[in-house]
Amino acid sequence: MPNDLSLFFKPKSVAIIGASSNPNKLSFGIFRNLTQYGYEGKIYPINPNAAEILGLRCYPRIEDVPGAVDLAVLAVSARLTPDLIRACGEKGVKAITVISGGFREVGEEGAELEKRCLELVKLYGMRMIGPNCVGTMDLYSGLNTTFIHGVPDRGHIGFLSQSGAICGGIVDYVRGKRVGFSCFASLGNEADVTETDLIEYLAEDSDTHVIAAYVEAIRDGRRFVRVVREVGKLKPVVVLKAGKSSAGARAVSSHTGSIAGSMAAYHAAFKQSGVIEVESVSELFDVAVALDYQPLPSGKKVVLLTNSGGPAALASDSIAEHGHQLADLSDLTQQKLREILNPSAQVTNPVDMLGGAEPTDYGEALKIILQDKNVDVVIPILVPQALIKPELVARELYHAWKGSPIPMICCFMGDESVKEARNFLHEHRIPMYTFPDSIGRVLGAMGRYHSWRVQMPSRPPEPSPIAHREQVRSILNAYAGEMALGERVTREILQAYGCPIVEGGFANSPKEAGSHADRLGGKVVLKIVSPDLLHKSEVGGIQLGIEGKSEA
Amino acid sequence: MPNDLSLFFKPKSVAIIGASSNPNKLSFGIFRNLTQYGYEGKIYPINPNAAEILGLRCYPRIEDVPGAVDLAVLAVSARLTPDLIRACGEKGVKAITVISGGFREVGEEGAELEKRCLELVKLYGMRMIGPNCVGTMDLYSGLNTTFIHGVPDRGHIGFLSQSGAICGGIVDYVRGKRVGFSCFASLGNEADVTETDLIEYLAEDSDTHVIAAYVEAIRDGRRFVRVVREVGKLKPVVVLKAGKSSAGARAVSSHTGSIAGSMAAYHAAFKQSGVIEVESVSELFDVAVALDYQPLPSGKKVVLLTNSGGPAALASDSIAEHGHQLADLSDLTQQKLREILNPSAQVTNPVDMLGGAEPTDYGEALKIILQDKNVDVVIPILVPQALIKPELVARELYHAWKGSPIPMICCFMGDESVKEARNFLHEHRIPMYTFPDSIGRVLGAMGRYHSWRVQMPSRPPEPSPIAHREQVRSILNAYAGEMALGERVTREILQAYGCPIVEGGFANSPKEAGSHADRLGGKVVLKIVSPDLLHKSEVGGIQLGIEGKSEA
Repeated sequence: MPNDLSLFFKPKSVAIIGASSNPNKLSFGIFRNLTQYGYEGKIYPINPNAAEILGLRCYPRIEDVPGAVDLAVLAVSARLTPDLIRACGEKGVKAITVISGGFREVGEEGAELEKRCLELVKLYGMRMIGPNCVGTMDLYSGLNTTFIHGVPDRGHIGFLSQSGAICGGIVDYVRGKRVGFSCFASLGNEADVTETDLIEYLAEDSDTHVIAAYVEAIRDGRRFVRVVREVGKLKPVVVLKAGKSSAGARAVSSHTGSIAGSMAAYHAAFKQSGVIEVESVSELFDVAVALDYQPLPSGKKVVLLTNSGGPAALASDSIAEHGHQLADLSDLTQQKLREILNPSAQVTNPVDMLGGAEPTDYGEALKIILQDKNVDVVIPILVPQALIKPELVARELYHAWKGSPIPMICCFMGDESVKEARNFLHEHRIPMYTFPDSIGRVLGAMGRYHSWRVQMPSRPPEPSPIAHREQVRSILNAYAGEMALGERVTREILQAYGCPIVEGGFANSPKEAGSHADRLGGKVVLKIVSPDLLHKSEVGGIQLGIEGKSEA
Repeated sequence: MPNDLSLFFKPKSVAIIGASSNPNKLSFGIFRNLTQYGYEGKIYPINPNAAEILGLRCYPRIEDVPGAVDLAVLAVSARLTPDLIRACGEKGVKAITVISGGFREVGEEGAELEKRCLELVKLYGMRMIGPNCVGTMDLYSGLNTTFIHGVPDRGHIGFLSQSGAICGGIVDYVRGKRVGFSCFASLGNEADVTETDLIEYLAEDSDTHVIAAYVEAIRDGRRFVRVVREVGKLKPVVVLKAGKSSAGARAVSSHTGSIAGSMAAYHAAFKQSGVIEVESVSELFDVAVALDYQPLPSGKKVVLLTNSGGPAALASDSIAEHGHQLADLSDLTQQKLREILNPSAQVTNPVDMLGGAEPTDYGEALKIILQDKNVDVVIPILVPQALIKPELVARELYHAWKGSPIPMICCFMGDESVKEARNFLHEHRIPMYTFPDSIGRVLGAMGRYHSWRVQMPSRPPEPSPIAHREQVRSILNAYAGEMALGERVTREILQAYGCPIVEGGFANSPKEAGSHADRLGGKVVLKIVSPDLLHKSEVGGIQLGIEGKSEA
């Protein structure tokens, strides 16, 4: 199946099937969004009960549309969807987005409907996003088939999500912060187009420099790892995974009908494929912005340049927690700083210019610090003072830093009085965060990605022959939501992959254990197996050198 | 020494010694802030080189002020400070805030100056906040002796900080979010008034319902524990501790000259005294707001009421991670929800009303959920949609919830379009957070405090006689920045407190170990002691039943 998904983002013509003229309907919201953000292709509302919507001529059925239709967006009830997909196929539509819910996520009947949709999509050689999604948004073509309120600035983060709401929440959060995105895609139930397809598409999309994803379940883990390993060499892939706990896994399952799967398996897959895993929505956003705006630090030695000690202490804790260190500034650097700064200022790292620091102090000190060979990253920290304009500090920092190969990440604490500064910094591709304790996670993520890129073998290892992939999947699914897979499950998985393992057996009673011991012969090891006991030796759960039935 | 610190917050008259008429000086910023936020007491600028500042008559020296002065704020160089403190003493001033830096935090000479200041303060029976601080702010008296830009709304969170900048950052962050504070106090080097004094004062301040603190070092841990245990029974004390890592501890030390101390000791002290420890500035703020606005949940069963599955999955993970569960809704509740909601809506927990949910759906569903006996906390989640006004959802939620004893905490994802909703909710004392993954930490903190309150013995255990407090302090200081104290240190501390411990000894060679074994006699245990090995048994670092020198 071809993987050119560009029709979902840059189509020449779009039909909205089920576009409503009632401003209280979501399908009206979708239609309005499509007409509102500069999309220059043809737009066809399809609705047998309306003559026009928002001034555009309405067609009763897709087959009535005079010209070709690249993308059809369906916002009708689940029951009606298969027939309308067939009509799209007959019309020659190539891409279909099904916004409506009522499919796999609501039970068997819905799953049956979803299956029929997929069969029709394949029959006509189309691709389908959804069902049960919020559609796509492209900040370059102006396409917007979502009912999300507002759009972010144009930029280079491509965002894909198995939850449309997470797209909506992020759009709302970033509006007005001058953070740019290339596109948003909400994938819903992923009956056809999956997160891996989308990552493959975004890898080739020149508007996208960083791929960020909210993921609930990955169905074809092997393909995901294979694809993302390659994509990761070109651009970073940052992933937030939901369904870590059993409560979260249940919530995921009722949301899109997906099985969240074992987090252990996900962590391993992410690590292998160079995915930058994050723990929260704000971290997903913070890390994506840093990766988009700044080069990767070539090492882990950080300088803090601050007007206040407390935030520098919190930043120090945070960077240490995530594997970075405070750089030792050279004697020359310290001497030069001493010459220009307040005599009470501290010229070792953290460089604390004290509360009275002026914008020019930031600029001059930064220039000196950037000359120091011991520095891999510089973090200017500002806490607003009554007499200092944060935007002037931002300007001084930018001009002092401009042209330097050393990454700079700013922390301006606060909100109200640092808005202009943030906008200026973001416009100049310098990330700015609110709290010093979020710096460490960002640096940690950049560092992990850097290490992976450096250590990455030139070609991936040959995938081992997997005779029993379905078996492993069913094993993992059975343990969805467990935080750790015990020995019993791990053995089954290793065996399915053909790995040699030490012989053994599981016993529910001393008698069974004895039988195993006799069968194996010689000295055996007796271990306790319980999901509550991860560290067996701490509780005396491992006994060495047992011989035969009697001792067991 | 009397602990009525109210003169730092509600004085009848204030002198600003060193008030400048130059708008580029911090001491001008302080003076302007004092005149700007409704403080109704007398204000005396003291400056020999100015006739008036901002229209107020200036006095050359404190002794020239005609009336009494309750509080003197000193913003002059460190060198001049002791003489001016003496002048204040002679004048009969009772409370002194020293804003200036250049004391203990800059080295020996500064430490000497600080010592002289303290001696004079004691000589005249005064109290002193600082030096090296940002002063105090009281949202009820209107007093503001800081140079922080802006003030937050009036409310019931009392905030104290060993970093003035953290005060400033928080003020800037909360402005415009309708989150109320009773007062701010920046304590700097704490030469006289300490964090514990302030907590004692805030315990009795009727405007303060929750005490929030940013702490770098606590010098008298024993008094802290004793005081906070009592205060915690009246109102919650939330603490963010900096200096967890060795890098952070060094940053702390250069900031206020304090020794951050072992985090293990702090964690233990916090746990014992019922302190609610948090990990970041945003968590400090989030938890304080929840504790101020809402009653403590009586159990851990949470209901999520949402218009979107993804955020509910993230919230589920987050609450599970912090020891809470999704409540099982009764059959009756589910049936009633089914009657009023969209047929595709999910009526088990998380209750997912889907993207089209209207404000009235939120209100009606919430009323039904609040009737269910299985519910301890309710978390409405909203992701903005093109057609829904978040503030209408906020109103419906508030009216449906009003009068219920069940705590409600909202998550409205986004920023731009949820501002009005947040203001409405905060005005009605309902906390509102931006991201679903921050809910768990807040509930976890409330839960820990609730458990402590319930389990708290009616009177604290008799403090054990501490003959060697100084010794313990020096032990802890020597290990400042270590994340865990090994057995060697722990034994020393236990011995200092007179606790009985199993006899033993430390050996640097097998021979030494043998000597210890012979001395102790009988069978002994051999353990490895290394800061890199916390879990000894996992690496075979513990050998049981060794007899005498040869085996060792």
